[in-house]
Amino acid sequence: MTDRATGLLDRPTSQQPPSRTHRQRVAAFVESKGFQRLIVSLIVLNAAVLGLETYDEVTARWDWLLSPLNRFIIAVFVAEIALRIFAHGRSFFRSGWGLFDLFVVTLALIPASGDAAVLRVLRVLRVLRLLSTVRSMRRVVGALVTAIPGIASIGALLVILYYVGIVMATNLFSGISPEHFGNLGQTATSMFRIMIGDGGLGDIVEPIGREQPAAWLFFLIFVVVTTFVVLNLFIAVTVEALDRQRENESRDDDTSSSGPDREDQLLEAIKDLQRQVSSLERRLDGPGNPQQ
Amino acid sequence: MTDRATGLLDRPTSQQPPSRTHRQRVAAFVESKGFQRLIVSLIVLNAAVLGLETYDEVTARWDWLLSPLNRFIIAVFVAEIALRIFAHGRSFFRSGWGLFDLFVVTLALIPASGDAAVLRVLRVLRVLRLLSTVRSMRRVVGALVTAIPGIASIGALLVILYYVGIVMATNLFSGISPEHFGNLGQTATSMFRIMIGDGGLGDIVEPIGREQPAAWLFFLIFVVVTTFVVLNLFIAVTVEALDRQRENESRDDDTSSSGPDREDQLLEAIKDLQRQVSSLERRLDGPGNPQQ
Amino acid sequence: MTDRATGLLDRPTSQQPPSRTHRQRVAAFVESKGFQRLIVSLIVLNAAVLGLETYDEVTARWDWLLSPLNRFIIAVFVAEIALRIFAHGRSFFRSGWGLFDLFVVTLALIPASGDAAVLRVLRVLRVLRLLSTVRSMRRVVGALVTAIPGIASIGALLVILYYVGIVMATNLFSGISPEHFGNLGQTATSMFRIMIGDGGLGDIVEPIGREQPAAWLFFLIFVVVTTFVVLNLFIAVTVEALDRQRENESRDDDTSSSGPDREDQLLEAIKDLQRQVSSLERRLDGPGNPQQ
Amino acid sequence: MTDRATGLLDRPTSQQPPSRTHRQRVAAFVESKGFQRLIVSLIVLNAAVLGLETYDEVTARWDWLLSPLNRFIIAVFVAEIALRIFAHGRSFFRSGWGLFDLFVVTLALIPASGDAAVLRVLRVLRVLRLLSTVRSMRRVVGALVTAIPGIASIGALLVILYYVGIVMATNLFSGISPEHFGNLGQTATSMFRIMIGDGGLGDIVEPIGREQPAAWLFFLIFVVVTTFVVLNLFIAVTVEALDRQRENESRDDDTSSSGPDREDQLLEAIKDLQRQVSSLERRLDGPGNPQQ
Repeated sequence: MTDRATGLLDRPTSQQPPSRTHRQRVAAFVESKGFQRLIVSLIVLNAAVLGLETYDEVTARWDWLLSPLNRFIIAVFVAEIALRIFAHGRSFFRSGWGLFDLFVVTLALIPASGDAAVLRVLRVLRVLRLLSTVRSMRRVVGALVTAIPGIASIGALLVILYYVGIVMATNLFSGISPEHFGNLGQTATSMFRIMIGDGGLGDIVEPIGREQPAAWLFFLIFVVVTTFVVLNLFIAVTVEALDRQRENESRDDDTSSSGPDREDQLLEAIKDLQRQVSSLERRLDGPGNPQQ
Repeated sequence: MTDRATGLLDRPTSQQPPSRTHRQRVAAFVESKGFQRLIVSLIVLNAAVLGLETYDEVTARWDWLLSPLNRFIIAVFVAEIALRIFAHGRSFFRSGWGLFDLFVVTLALIPASGDAAVLRVLRVLRVLRLLSTVRSMRRVVGALVTAIPGIASIGALLVILYYVGIVMATNLFSGISPEHFGNLGQTATSMFRIMIGDGGLGDIVEPIGREQPAAWLFFLIFVVVTTFVVLNLFIAVTVEALDRQRENESRDDDTSSSGPDREDQLLEAIKDLQRQVSSLERRLDGPGNPQQ
Repeated sequence: MTDRATGLLDRPTSQQPPSRTHRQRVAAFVESKGFQRLIVSLIVLNAAVLGLETYDEVTARWDWLLSPLNRFIIAVFVAEIALRIFAHGRSFFRSGWGLFDLFVVTLALIPASGDAAVLRVLRVLRVLRLLSTVRSMRRVVGALVTAIPGIASIGALLVILYYVGIVMATNLFSGISPEHFGNLGQTATSMFRIMIGDGGLGDIVEPIGREQPAAWLFFLIFVVVTTFVVLNLFIAVTVEALDRQRENESRDDDTSSSGPDREDQLLEAIKDLQRQVSSLERRLDGPGNPQQ
Repeated sequence: MTDRATGLLDRPTSQQPPSRTHRQRVAAFVESKGFQRLIVSLIVLNAAVLGLETYDEVTARWDWLLSPLNRFIIAVFVAEIALRIFAHGRSFFRSGWGLFDLFVVTLALIPASGDAAVLRVLRVLRVLRLLSTVRSMRRVVGALVTAIPGIASIGALLVILYYVGIVMATNLFSGISPEHFGNLGQTATSMFRIMIGDGGLGDIVEPIGREQPAAWLFFLIFVVVTTFVVLNLFIAVTVEALDRQRENESRDDDTSSSGPDREDQLLEAIKDLQRQVSSLERRLDGPGNPQQ
């Protein structure tokens, strides 16, 4: 918090100059390798503590250590977010990752008792700060998120087909198998089990099929159609990922390849030649005149 | 139904001109953004109503609202189809999507009682009108449908192998496990469960394997062969999707890339040069003659 | 069996000429569209009969029809194979598809009783003649078979890892769970169920895990490693299929694209120009001599 | 161990020359086709013996044969490793495959009784020597291992999401279903079953869903998110494999394709032409001077 005048480029306002210098210094500190490493270590430590607390024996015996440790880590996180907000100002709130960190740390402040206590389970989302803090994780998550719009239409198609399937199944089989197809919610879970091949055909469809063999046809069509759509969802993602890759490559190629340059050279050489021949012609015209 | 003469280009027939004008106006109305949005909203609303009706409590309590709402939506759909048929005439029946909409709306008119009552469950197919009405959905479904012919041969192969497998399994295991392999239909469902890994190996094959260990060999071969074919079905779809993509790209490249143009320019420049040199030759021949 | 002399190109041998003509005629008949269609229809009919025979009621009531039909179809198949052997001679036995048809039809002649009766179940392999007779099926199966060598090494890796896994599992868990890991055969089937996610983790691993939690680590490693190898098997097939496709395309490109031709034209044009300029030089030398 | 002077190229040192010659001879012997084949045969034989020993009847009856055979094979392996260490010296310890072989053979020397007896189960890893000894296996394993770094970030993302999922699930459901979500270890196995679709939804989630329907939402999100990440793991591997392939191809293209050579030829031809025309110009200048 010294006042050394490093702010040469700042406009001379009476109030803000020292604050601005502070901001820059805080930003440098918050983004320094050492501080980042400390935060990552604390996130990992916090993840371990949250995991250990699921064991009742551990909580009973080590609570005197884990509870303060937990509170200390949260305090550091709150301080870190505060410093980052101070350093980046409004732009902090414009960054998706910034808002994500703020949200996740805020969850830590939910009281352990009262109506909102059930939200305490969201505390563990803090571990996801690893995704926002480690650079390579950030890139991977970014790539996955950008892949989502490309598959949105096929995803919507899947949802529509799935919805039609469960409404039909509820209408058809609520009488035969009320425990699996009693209402839309139950049917949704039963059909999800059938779709992902989680033993649903044996547990759910077989008893129905014994009463109504035609039911198999319905479920066969459902499985084949949804599998085909999921397959195409998969392909859409693959094709897009490959294209993005290829695009990047061809952009690299454009700057490095000398193909067009070569042809430019050729054209230039030929034009030089034309000029030479033209001057030759003019020269022939010149000396030829006095001869005649 | 006014008679303003906008049909300047129409042939002066005594009966049809006003109708033709009406048709154009109706077509413009039916295809207007606002009307399309209304229809999409009604489809979504209808989907919600059809879902809610699967809950007995909801039907009991809200039937006074849901039933008229349902009938109103169907009325709008019928009116929409009628307008579209009026607007497009015969070409309506030539469009796949048009026929699909007509079929799906007609299903809504099936009486709730009587022999055809079981077909009422098809009412929910109305929700699929989302696929024919929303443009992006239409494109996705179109793409999926065009992918089908490319995989038809491998699909047929899968069906043949599957059929051979179930006939053999019925012959081999109908004695040991009559509840799963008693006849072709039962075997078909049992083998489907085994093929998609839905717990069939544990529930169905294990009891047989205890009596006849060699049975495992049969099912192992069946699972490996069908999985290999399904895998190749998958690859066929991927390769075709990638190729279609690449084809589109290269078509784009052909129009934008200046590669051939460059070479044309080069060839043109060289031909110009040849003409120049030729005229030079002729000129040299010319003044040479008088000298001799 | 007429003696019309169409064998103009034949060497005049005393015994074989008429036979050769017959052979050609028989080959033309056997490969004719009509005959092929008949055979395909009979294969499909045979497939249906073999399926129907798995229903005891059908066999009891319709055996008077199905049995003779079956025998008639086999008779036609035997006659067809005999004609093809007569028509193609030794080259019939050199074709993979020919041998396949011969093998499959021979299976039909296995007696219904006696020691070999269990092989009767192989009769249904006759349906696979669809693959050898329908041209498009033949192509698809050919493509799948050519894909096999490319994945042989990874397949072998999978077999080795799988073998190591089952020997270890038998040694480790035969005491805890003798019904699933009692010997190598039982372990092989149990681990197959675990590998393909067929409910094996719940039925087999969970009871073991309750006694020996470390067992989960073993099965986790097994599932992850084998899945990774299977994934790569999949990728190897995809990459090879894409490459074959791309190779074919680039071969097509080579013949159709005019790229190299253009450059040849350019080079030719420049060489013409050089010859022109050279003759110009000689001409300048020529008239210059008398002047000096 | 004769002293024939084949070491002509060796420096004449007093102590090492015979040893060096021996080394070369031993290396040639160890790497000879015949010896390699012997080792591969012994590994396969060893694999068979280790498999047979899992059957108690076999061990009881044939132990007099299998035990000495086993000891003989190990003796050969130890001798082979010793020879290779002698032949290659330090470089043996720098090769990954060398260390792998040494490790795997060392495991064979673990005593059958005592504290380390449980490690005897690792004897079967000897079979993995097939991977290090057969050349094509070595290449495949090498390729798989190089694919790992490319997917490390997505793998780490999967681990983080999985960890967050199991801590949340333990907190949420340890009360409702203590046998599946009692502590972090149990939850880890339960969620693994759910993630890979191994019947977990039916056995584990359904009972919870009956008490707390909202639980389905949690597991739905978990399954969809982890499946999406696994899908992208898959795509990352595919894209990388395809790129490696394409890179190799384009490297091949660079050396073989004559594209740039052609353009070089063109440019060279044009420059030759320019030189010709220049000399023409100079010649025209030459004879013109005396005329003036």
